[in-house]
Amino acid sequence: MNPEALWREAETTLARNWTGRATLPSGSQYPHQWSWDSAFISIGWARCDPARARAELAALFEGQWADGRLPHIVFSAAAPEDAYFPGPAFWDSRAHNGSPAVATTGIVQPPVHARAVLAVYEAGPDGEGAEGFLRESYERLAHWHSYLRSQRDPGGTGLPALVHPWESLDNSPLWDAPLAAVRLPAQAPHFTRRDITHVGARYRPTDHDYQLYIVLAEHYRDSGYDDGALEKTQFLVQDPMFSAIFLDAELCLARIASLAGRDPAPHERHARTVHDAMLGTLWDSRLGAFTARDLRTGELSGVVTIAALIPLLDPWLPDEVAGRLAALAGSPGFAGGAAHPMPSVPVDSPLFDRYRYWRGPTWINMNWLLWRALRGTKYSALADRIAQSSLGLVAAHGFREYYDPVDGTGLGTDEFSWSAALALDWLADPEVHARLQLDA
Amino acid sequence: MNPEALWREAETTLARNWTGRATLPSGSQYPHQWSWDSAFISIGWARCDPARARAELAALFEGQWADGRLPHIVFSAAAPEDAYFPGPAFWDSRAHNGSPAVATTGIVQPPVHARAVLAVYEAGPDGEGAEGFLRESYERLAHWHSYLRSQRDPGGTGLPALVHPWESLDNSPLWDAPLAAVRLPAQAPHFTRRDITHVGARYRPTDHDYQLYIVLAEHYRDSGYDDGALEKTQFLVQDPMFSAIFLDAELCLARIASLAGRDPAPHERHARTVHDAMLGTLWDSRLGAFTARDLRTGELSGVVTIAALIPLLDPWLPDEVAGRLAALAGSPGFAGGAAHPMPSVPVDSPLFDRYRYWRGPTWINMNWLLWRALRGTKYSALADRIAQSSLGLVAAHGFREYYDPVDGTGLGTDEFSWSAALALDWLADPEVHARLQLDA
Repeated sequence: MNPEALWREAETTLARNWTGRATLPSGSQYPHQWSWDSAFISIGWARCDPARARAELAALFEGQWADGRLPHIVFSAAAPEDAYFPGPAFWDSRAHNGSPAVATTGIVQPPVHARAVLAVYEAGPDGEGAEGFLRESYERLAHWHSYLRSQRDPGGTGLPALVHPWESLDNSPLWDAPLAAVRLPAQAPHFTRRDITHVGARYRPTDHDYQLYIVLAEHYRDSGYDDGALEKTQFLVQDPMFSAIFLDAELCLARIASLAGRDPAPHERHARTVHDAMLGTLWDSRLGAFTARDLRTGELSGVVTIAALIPLLDPWLPDEVAGRLAALAGSPGFAGGAAHPMPSVPVDSPLFDRYRYWRGPTWINMNWLLWRALRGTKYSALADRIAQSSLGLVAAHGFREYYDPVDGTGLGTDEFSWSAALALDWLADPEVHARLQLDA
Repeated sequence: MNPEALWREAETTLARNWTGRATLPSGSQYPHQWSWDSAFISIGWARCDPARARAELAALFEGQWADGRLPHIVFSAAAPEDAYFPGPAFWDSRAHNGSPAVATTGIVQPPVHARAVLAVYEAGPDGEGAEGFLRESYERLAHWHSYLRSQRDPGGTGLPALVHPWESLDNSPLWDAPLAAVRLPAQAPHFTRRDITHVGARYRPTDHDYQLYIVLAEHYRDSGYDDGALEKTQFLVQDPMFSAIFLDAELCLARIASLAGRDPAPHERHARTVHDAMLGTLWDSRLGAFTARDLRTGELSGVVTIAALIPLLDPWLPDEVAGRLAALAGSPGFAGGAAHPMPSVPVDSPLFDRYRYWRGPTWINMNWLLWRALRGTKYSALADRIAQSSLGLVAAHGFREYYDPVDGTGLGTDEFSWSAALALDWLADPEVHARLQLDA
């Protein structure tokens, strides 16, 4: 496939998932608007239709709560209640103070939105509505980040705490230990999984894990989505990926502030706080990796996953730390051994499962974040390998949700929007484009 | 003893050790000028005779090498060659390029000098020569710090590397593992220890350790004190205490730069580099402590000593890290269990030796650094406990080199200058003075 054909297919995929208001992650599996999907999707729209990119993010912001919370799903009124589980009736957002007019969930996803707003603005700074979009987005983003700082950091650690695996990489082995401590109620909840209607159970989280997810979501909902009682929650973790994305987001917001004539300094300070706390709390110097922490026990997980590498987004990492992370990224578990990097769990780990969701498969958004982190650094060769390998995957196997890192087979749903969107971003990058070699 | 009497005794001790040019660490044991002793001593002189404090530091700076190195001893021409071993003939500084006119050693000690210069200036900013002292000291200190950054950091880690245990806490258990790897030559060096003439061997490093010290010093000397070949040295370590003092020194130098009309920004950046590298390299998140690293193996020592706590000097530590360190400082191994804190090795450690030098005894300079680090923070109660306990020790047992943390007995040499000097600094502090309760 030539680059032009790949570009057209990516654009067509996004267009097919566009609802007139926002873009579905995939038409078959995910019939609503997801928070970080939308951010990645807008980065793709920015490359071909900046006005639609702005509309995408504006639609997401309509779901923002009064406390600044940007929910992980904004439900589409067009989809029937049983199109997705757990749906609007389960989350029951409108029964809660400060919820928006649209139905949403009450949990969040990683804050890639400032990065997306900046990409969208830079792709079309002169477009109609671009200035207004920037100023409006600044307010929304500042409020969203402030929520993470003030409501999600009960101990003042400098890092946001997550209350649910869905706030990060759902079934990542990082959450095995904290989930193992969650008590299921005597009467286990009854529900029908919708997530395995279109995708085989082999490729999705297990039933037991799914049951825990539902119980945790019920608890949080029944607490009134109240972050004032986080110490009572059964699941409370810090995540190097979420934290690193937050750091990057504060730096993007500082840039947005400058462009919008606001003061960037507070956002630089916030980024520095995350930097310090990430090094002080989640860096495991013996392991040579960032890892997650269970706030209920204070224990570091000691488990290495793709999340260990995302702090490469931090421009202030000591050379020593960046060097050890880059060595890990190039090691046999990751790019050094996986034919189609970057696996979400190292291929040489006993926890590696090449098929199952975040326990092994390669994901395009993780690759894109690592490429962003490494391009222009002394590790740019690895950045380029990741970009080229990712474009090879989508060209050969379509815009799938995830991929088998061993043989590249596409897994999960197809016509997956962020895989198409981020391919557009790569194809539009002159350096990536110049080196592109796609099989015929 | 009342505070006034203690003050007079401290002043008398310093005066007795004053040679007309500088102050000996103690008249009996140490007949030359030691680098970090002089810095601490000048902080005491600043409280009673700022001109002498300035002279003390100016004399030390006369020993600075062309490359910026501030040597650990400036030898006194007045002392006979055999007054101390290893002496001027052993170190043979004048055979080396860039050595100063006075005889010195070629190794260094922790850079507490900027902290001292600032204290001396602030004690007598209006004195005759105070402005000139400040500007001259700025140049000397900037050159000294530049040596540590450029010559002592072969890997660009952001932290200075030490080539000899005498550059830090000589016989600390932190150095046991790296020293165990040092090969003694077939023909072991012959020498007579002078350090056990005045102090019992029970209280000093062992003969075997001392032999290793001599061999390492010979190697470095025979390399021409060449830091370009550090990877060939048999002992190369990073030390949380030395690193934290360096960070504090860069922040003090930033302040000195401002006072002297120079640009403070580079020094703030250097401090930030040390901060990042210390967290990224020496913070052992599982242990909850800073520890040393052997640069020859890359391994963290995993050993907790008083050095673990000195990074509390870093004003940018994440709350989480500062909190864990403060908890360690108050734990049964340190202030929570030692009747006379702070022991140089936790009293509940199998490595604890209440009598031997840096393997257990309480030292006044470590206490002073921790007091500086903790005063004015939310851990100020611990700072106050340390200051009061220290003054209690010197009042009851004299200005000794170190103290048994179990019963307070004075150990090592007596009339020890820095114990007297830092007592003066405490006595002159209004807050410390207000709470002072000395036994009659």
